[in-house]
Amino acid sequence: MDEAKFKLGGRLWIEDAEGKLLGPGRVELLERIAASGSIRQAALQMKMSYKQAWDIVNYINEHFTEPVVISHRGGKGGGNAVVTDYGHGVIDEFRSLQKKFREFLADNSRLLNI
Amino acid sequence: MDEAKFKLGGRLWIEDAEGKLLGPGRVELLERIAASGSIRQAALQMKMSYKQAWDIVNYINEHFTEPVVISHRGGKGGGNAVVTDYGHGVIDEFRSLQKKFREFLADNSRLLNI
Repeated sequence: MDEAKFKLGGRLWIEDAEGKLLGPGRVELLERIAASGSIRQAALQMKMSYKQAWDIVNYINEHFTEPVVISHRGGKGGGNAVVTDYGHGVIDEFRSLQKKFREFLADNSRLLNI
Repeated sequence: MDEAKFKLGGRLWIEDAEGKLLGPGRVELLERIAASGSIRQAALQMKMSYKQAWDIVNYINEHFTEPVVISHRGGKGGGNAVVTDYGHGVIDEFRSLQKKFREFLADNSRLLNI
């Protein structure tokens, strides 16, 4: 089969009345917080500052219906962070929507008529 | 009916092996060139420089299968530009894909479970 010259690309995000709330980058941050138990570690892995990561977590926590991350600052080892059940639901929902979106892009790439 | 708190947003574009080729902004530029017959007018309407608009048109012309805009520089009135039949096909294709994408976003926004 020919490799098609053109295909569709795109980005998907969840938004509220104030704008973008959660896209691929923020979901990755949440997944890394869940895996490492640490906002600092997750920030390091994504080459963002600790403050940036904190600001994102706070913004997300305030804008979703329930908190997505619960964190305890400071203490031995620099505090820890836990993604809530609600937060895991948000991550799963976004990942499943992204899967559908990739299918949309692939299906419509095959139909591209240019 | 309740106004949902969250919805899906997104962006769609056509890409080739080198990356993004045509998204909403560039399609709007092409439509404005078609309507005004002038790259300069289209650039003005979109608050971009003439050079930026020219660079975009050149890039698009070189990367699609056929030229999308044919332009004659200079002369009385500052030259003119015509969107080719192929170019109109590209515009129509993108607009119809965007319509499908908006439906995808609306359908899946209704199903959002967060």
